[in-house]
Amino acid sequence: MAEQARRRRGGGGAARRAERGTLNIETAGVITRAIPDFELLDEEALSTIEEQAETVLAEIGVAFVENPAALALWREAGAEVEGEIVRLPRGLARTLCATAPSSFTQIARNPAKSVEIGGRNLVLAPVYGPPFVRDEGGRRYATMGDFETFVKLGHMSKWLHHSGGTVCEPTDIPVSKRHLDMLMAHATLTDKPFMGSVTEPSRAADSVAFADILFGGLDGRCALTNLVNINSPLTFDATMMGALEVYAKAGQACIVSPFIVGGAMAPVTVAGTLVQVLAEVMAGVAYSQLVRPGAPVIFGAFVTSIDMGSGAPTFGTPEAAQITYGAGQLARRMGLPYRSGGSFCGSKLPDAQAAYETANTLNGALLAGVNFMLHACGWLEGGLVADFEKFVMDADQLGALHKMARGVVADAEVLDAIREVGPGGHYLGAAHTQARFKDAFWRSELFDYKPYETWAEEGGRDTRALASARVKKLLAAYEPPAMDPAVREALDAYVATRKEELPDSMI
Amino acid sequence: MAEQARRRRGGGGAARRAERGTLNIETAGVITRAIPDFELLDEEALSTIEEQAETVLAEIGVAFVENPAALALWREAGAEVEGEIVRLPRGLARTLCATAPSSFTQIARNPAKSVEIGGRNLVLAPVYGPPFVRDEGGRRYATMGDFETFVKLGHMSKWLHHSGGTVCEPTDIPVSKRHLDMLMAHATLTDKPFMGSVTEPSRAADSVAFADILFGGLDGRCALTNLVNINSPLTFDATMMGALEVYAKAGQACIVSPFIVGGAMAPVTVAGTLVQVLAEVMAGVAYSQLVRPGAPVIFGAFVTSIDMGSGAPTFGTPEAAQITYGAGQLARRMGLPYRSGGSFCGSKLPDAQAAYETANTLNGALLAGVNFMLHACGWLEGGLVADFEKFVMDADQLGALHKMARGVVADAEVLDAIREVGPGGHYLGAAHTQARFKDAFWRSELFDYKPYETWAEEGGRDTRALASARVKKLLAAYEPPAMDPAVREALDAYVATRKEELPDSMI
Repeated sequence: MAEQARRRRGGGGAARRAERGTLNIETAGVITRAIPDFELLDEEALSTIEEQAETVLAEIGVAFVENPAALALWREAGAEVEGEIVRLPRGLARTLCATAPSSFTQIARNPAKSVEIGGRNLVLAPVYGPPFVRDEGGRRYATMGDFETFVKLGHMSKWLHHSGGTVCEPTDIPVSKRHLDMLMAHATLTDKPFMGSVTEPSRAADSVAFADILFGGLDGRCALTNLVNINSPLTFDATMMGALEVYAKAGQACIVSPFIVGGAMAPVTVAGTLVQVLAEVMAGVAYSQLVRPGAPVIFGAFVTSIDMGSGAPTFGTPEAAQITYGAGQLARRMGLPYRSGGSFCGSKLPDAQAAYETANTLNGALLAGVNFMLHACGWLEGGLVADFEKFVMDADQLGALHKMARGVVADAEVLDAIREVGPGGHYLGAAHTQARFKDAFWRSELFDYKPYETWAEEGGRDTRALASARVKKLLAAYEPPAMDPAVREALDAYVATRKEELPDSMI
Repeated sequence: MAEQARRRRGGGGAARRAERGTLNIETAGVITRAIPDFELLDEEALSTIEEQAETVLAEIGVAFVENPAALALWREAGAEVEGEIVRLPRGLARTLCATAPSSFTQIARNPAKSVEIGGRNLVLAPVYGPPFVRDEGGRRYATMGDFETFVKLGHMSKWLHHSGGTVCEPTDIPVSKRHLDMLMAHATLTDKPFMGSVTEPSRAADSVAFADILFGGLDGRCALTNLVNINSPLTFDATMMGALEVYAKAGQACIVSPFIVGGAMAPVTVAGTLVQVLAEVMAGVAYSQLVRPGAPVIFGAFVTSIDMGSGAPTFGTPEAAQITYGAGQLARRMGLPYRSGGSFCGSKLPDAQAAYETANTLNGALLAGVNFMLHACGWLEGGLVADFEKFVMDADQLGALHKMARGVVADAEVLDAIREVGPGGHYLGAAHTQARFKDAFWRSELFDYKPYETWAEEGGRDTRALASARVKKLLAAYEPPAMDPAVREALDAYVATRKEELPDSMI
């Protein structure tokens, strides 16, 4: 059916370009906030949390597991090391963190799409990590084909600034090799910036080598932003730290991110969770600066609540929002870029639950001052599923964040307009309206704004059905961005060589 | 089928009480914010808007249509009256508004459910005004039976503090008489506070007389909050002002509310719309204080954006949020309670679009400092439809606002907890968790938190299907609150007499 439709349209380049003409395939600039942050916690609460985090680091400590080199670095820096436990004298972590930049540029293959991460900016990247995908046909294990489809959809999403990383796990490719295919998809199917592999230090090294070829030598530039999860509570495992070491040494950015379901991996209170988040991030960021002072790094917080009845993580909840606001304040006080938020939801379907939970999270993240939002679209079922329909639904909503962040501009001509229209008139034809109506109001490219009768005649479709149609429309119009054939050849050669060298393995 | 199910369960009082045991039929106290407001606009923008609003009132003026008595009052107060146009010298409106209380109590039949409107409080009331309803069977004209069903659902909604007013238009009852049936439903099917009629001054008078009987004499107490829309731009019609006059003289509260689709009834910019909103509210509130100094009144703002393509009003948009934040700041600077927000959406179905748009609005309204939120649940299709499923979906989400507003409490014992668990442990069994887990995290009573497999076995239901089941469950367990038979008899007699006196009419 879809195949027929494609044939009927002719399928040639001209037809595709015509089709694309009705779609928006430009990429918006990153969000630069002209609005204040929402400061949920007062000074007293913030300094209490900071004081408690120092106590955690000094008295309880953090574990650097199976990593003697890290322990040596810590000892040298003045920490007290006992077995694998590292205790940091008060103030040490904060002092070490001071060399991390407050903002940095991640370059993209298309220079116009390079992003500045930090300050008043917000950079949006898609969902990361799900082993399953869902489309109108249901839920199934993700494949490399699905991965490529998501990268294409991301490329065509105006409000997405970043192509992300593991948009889904390509489970049909050996774990030992799939990072190479993922890098190739991001490098060739889009010209937006992307992420490297963290599942093994050697895969991080492959990512750096790959980026070096893609960019014709990195020359100290940051070309990869990489997700380094902390094994909360207070544990830094050798795999993730090994990846961090590779990236920090190469001047690539790491998101140092506690991964916390509150009540399970952190205290059951919001304030308690913030204490642990801060302690963990401070230790991780400090370690990155021990490895290489000045390495770009992001204060991460992936934190949500738990349903104490079922034990399931819950998303879009008020506690998750409070943590997102509070962690943003703590990150700003450290002068670090902040990663949090996303299209989080627990729902199994891209339905109303999914949308409530996602909107709760997206709105909070914008006002919380997030600088890098991973998972900004496509997340479903607690992160187990990357959903094609929800990807375009969420990506559309991200447009609203752009407009909201622009703030309110005083309008000197408003009195002329009100004078022109006067009591009882209407503004549709006013000169003030005519001069502004095109850009005055944000407009969804997905939702149905038609009259009820038209909508009913057209089948009475719900958002999910509209999204399904939009996925097909975008993919039919997709064209890869142009690439220098010599670069492509070099990337192909690198991947082929590494695939030869590496064993097939599912770990 | 539902009838069979009811019979099978026995249907007796004991069975109903047992069933009710599994449902939450308590009513939460009103939200009292322990969190700051989000101050979107800076001082310069706010004072520019205030200055421009004064210019609008002084130079352009507002129209009080077909209301010679109002014009006389204005003239006496020092306004310049020309035809039906009233121009207020700079400062006059603000001076007159100063006698309005910053906060007031609306009494409920159940004293525990009386609400304080203003200050740091947020009072939640259901959807108001739709001529249609929608349930799993589709969309149809609303009837008095639907009205009663919504009042019952509102009574059983823990997070709803207020029973509202015209939860839907009972189109099967003559317009001339339906206000009496609506008042009776609110007075008898729930013990929460409610609203009076505004469609005719005489119906407002009926509402006051009815409340006087219900409360055994009002004695200056406010028992009705009433929605008085301004006919934007800048026009105050005789019907709405007539209702306001009746209510203000009786010490009952009016929400003075511009009704604005930006770009149609106000300038197409956010700042321009705020200028007009402020001018209109100042004129309306000032007039209420001319009628009776000290009459309780609310600064209302029903404002949304427009799709310039189709002309349809759009909801949950960034511009609507910006206006909601800005109007809240203007209301606080006037020291008036603030009404805005609601479960706004343009969607025709209770789907993802509806939920995104609603969540965008609800989150904004909480942080905007709204004191009275009409339409807090059940709104669909731009307000044309009151939807049963969405009513319970939204009402569930209102619980999250309660928890969010409680803010973050510093946690002195957190260090003990982190010490107890240490690096690599888990918190589920910790004493700190056990002592707090019941109330630590907000939990939806609607959403599915089950594992994927269980959810799939149970039919793979979406939010709408879960909501449909919850509507049935709530209604099956509904019992009316007890009422003094003498009061009931007096109310019945009043309504019967008035129905005799009034003609059957559909205007």
